[in-house]
Amino acid sequence: MHVNPYYEKLPGNYLFAEIARRVKAYSAAHPDADIIKLGIGDVTRPLAPAVVNAMKKAADEMLAPATFHGYGPDYGYEFLIDAIREKDYAPRGVALAADEVFISDGAKTDTSAIQELFAPDARIAVTDPVYPVYVDSNAMAGRLGDFTDGRWNRLTYLPCNAENGFVPEPPKEPVDVIYLCYPNNPTGTTLTAAQLTPFVEYARKYGALIVYDAAYKAFITSQVPHSIYEVPGAREVAIECCSFSKTAGFTGVRCAYSVIPHEVTGIGGNGQRVELNALWKRRMGSKFNGVSYPVQRAAEAVFSPEGQAQCAEAVRYYRENAALIRRELQTAGYEVFGGVDAPYVWMKTPTDSWAFFDRLLDQAHVVGTPGAGFGPSGEGYFRLTAFNTREKTAQALERIRRL
Amino acid sequence: MHVNPYYEKLPGNYLFAEIARRVKAYSAAHPDADIIKLGIGDVTRPLAPAVVNAMKKAADEMLAPATFHGYGPDYGYEFLIDAIREKDYAPRGVALAADEVFISDGAKTDTSAIQELFAPDARIAVTDPVYPVYVDSNAMAGRLGDFTDGRWNRLTYLPCNAENGFVPEPPKEPVDVIYLCYPNNPTGTTLTAAQLTPFVEYARKYGALIVYDAAYKAFITSQVPHSIYEVPGAREVAIECCSFSKTAGFTGVRCAYSVIPHEVTGIGGNGQRVELNALWKRRMGSKFNGVSYPVQRAAEAVFSPEGQAQCAEAVRYYRENAALIRRELQTAGYEVFGGVDAPYVWMKTPTDSWAFFDRLLDQAHVVGTPGAGFGPSGEGYFRLTAFNTREKTAQALERIRRL
Repeated sequence: MHVNPYYEKLPGNYLFAEIARRVKAYSAAHPDADIIKLGIGDVTRPLAPAVVNAMKKAADEMLAPATFHGYGPDYGYEFLIDAIREKDYAPRGVALAADEVFISDGAKTDTSAIQELFAPDARIAVTDPVYPVYVDSNAMAGRLGDFTDGRWNRLTYLPCNAENGFVPEPPKEPVDVIYLCYPNNPTGTTLTAAQLTPFVEYARKYGALIVYDAAYKAFITSQVPHSIYEVPGAREVAIECCSFSKTAGFTGVRCAYSVIPHEVTGIGGNGQRVELNALWKRRMGSKFNGVSYPVQRAAEAVFSPEGQAQCAEAVRYYRENAALIRRELQTAGYEVFGGVDAPYVWMKTPTDSWAFFDRLLDQAHVVGTPGAGFGPSGEGYFRLTAFNTREKTAQALERIRRL
Repeated sequence: MHVNPYYEKLPGNYLFAEIARRVKAYSAAHPDADIIKLGIGDVTRPLAPAVVNAMKKAADEMLAPATFHGYGPDYGYEFLIDAIREKDYAPRGVALAADEVFISDGAKTDTSAIQELFAPDARIAVTDPVYPVYVDSNAMAGRLGDFTDGRWNRLTYLPCNAENGFVPEPPKEPVDVIYLCYPNNPTGTTLTAAQLTPFVEYARKYGALIVYDAAYKAFITSQVPHSIYEVPGAREVAIECCSFSKTAGFTGVRCAYSVIPHEVTGIGGNGQRVELNALWKRRMGSKFNGVSYPVQRAAEAVFSPEGQAQCAEAVRYYRENAALIRRELQTAGYEVFGGVDAPYVWMKTPTDSWAFFDRLLDQAHVVGTPGAGFGPSGEGYFRLTAFNTREKTAQALERIRRL
């Protein structure tokens, strides 16, 4: 059997695997170094008690035949879908039908699987720097051509940097799909409705699809959209992926949701319009068996009054970490971006980003993520995350200031 | 954007959607009919208390920073992988390395995703009748050609019927991948090591891969292999997918595992051998974020002494249902197969299988699954499942006997 030829085109080392390798090597050589990790985007605050109680209650239901739950609906339980519609979307003026919301085990799963609905030769655009999953999933499907000098030759990069205020321009060439993530990973920056509008207009004009990743929307405090559907016309061109991971600390619990409005269509073999909603149902029905019942009950509890209050507290904690990181870096003379509506602070580095990574590790024992790992326009930048404890975060920043 | 052209080639209606449609229509027309479902393969017995306790304990751990679990390993926690190696495989003489076992949310997920590692033009073979997921996932990837007269013209069917004792022959033409499921869904039949050996030999001789679905292995009582790796030489050519769904009633909890030995390779672009284990790691790392921590703790408890005893009790319950179905059908004069080492009984129908479905629904108010829905060789057969309660199962069979 021949294997999928596109896997061979992937660059050798993952970003985070390479980071782990360097940290491990450094630790081995310096066993006494007290290393603080502000690298990966994993949460550290405990789950909301309301969430844990709901999960345990659901687990208990599984003990009796009358309340036992076997296979759930492939697309998610109605109780969770309705909570999302009523508590997450309706308050922002976004009305969704029950069959436009799909529950899954993660936004990574959804944003990497959505490309299965695209034609094999679909042209893809991503903002640069970018969360690697959009790129890798399309590369594995053979859509991106070859990777040379840090770039895929069949991928459209939309640069985001200090010069353009991290506001990307819509593609100059025709593309079929644009991935957008706001609040952004890795830069922590946002787009206003006015700045998102040209993308919706582009998609409507050229028949393109927007895959909008809103995984960090719980961190928004500024006047920017929480959902792409707050932008007029987006319902016809955009899919939106959300997650409980950062909103409610579910990185280890695994639950997410995606919205696919009925109006979003692609072109079929005879030129006819095909609903992506229908294709996704077929995909989910054939390849997925739904999310764990106790996990869906836990996710439902995120929307209860206690759950909302408890989850907001954790988000506030991380937000204060981000503010601390911003403040301390600025005091130390660094130029910083993001970190206001997002758990990520994006800083300019005095040297190239991997050299800065090595220096920070060696001289401050602090681990961050080199911008170059997120794409060509990430070079010269560095990401710090707000997900560690207050104490460790403060300690890390103190060390960076002393550099 | 053009959509994936292969979705359009899929047959219009899913099997189970069509069944649901007919049942719904019948219920609407006959609101007083007390319909008993022996159709889909969902469990009904409650979870083992040991499993629920483990899940609740893990949920409680999530309440404190010191015991909170964020992102787990992409491939699963060591505690669960080790339990599988030591309690499931080692006792059968199968030694597995820790990085040869991958934890996922379902065998459906794994058996549908594994084809992502194959070349786009890989030739596929399935036993016929067959669990539809193997076929649909390859059809969606464009490997099966066109579906006409109930057959994909680029898929190799290996017929299993009463004439050959439900023992398929290895393909006569060259194929790259063979999907085998034993104990079998839908026929409930098994293969002995001697009957599996020609498949392993075929795969070794022609460089083919075997995807072995062992989801029903907990039901085995006869002298047949629980794992393909009990067949000499299989480690070099076979992947094995297992599930807690039927073993431990996890259809609503979602946990499964797949084994990919390092020896299993495919051919890369330069003719070199490529480990599928390495490709799968890349796939999981890029598209998956691991299984819920409380769910993995629940799965671990399946292997505890109490968990083993409690889960075995549920399996015995279903097995006795299957024996009841077999006995009653035979008394009623039907020819039956399977149901000894599996929760499925496969019966010969006096008419074509959809006509028998309609008659059973109308005259006995019993729902089963027409064999034709599982493939061309399923015509003339019908599947009944052992997963309902003893009372309902007995009642359904009494009605069938009165037909």
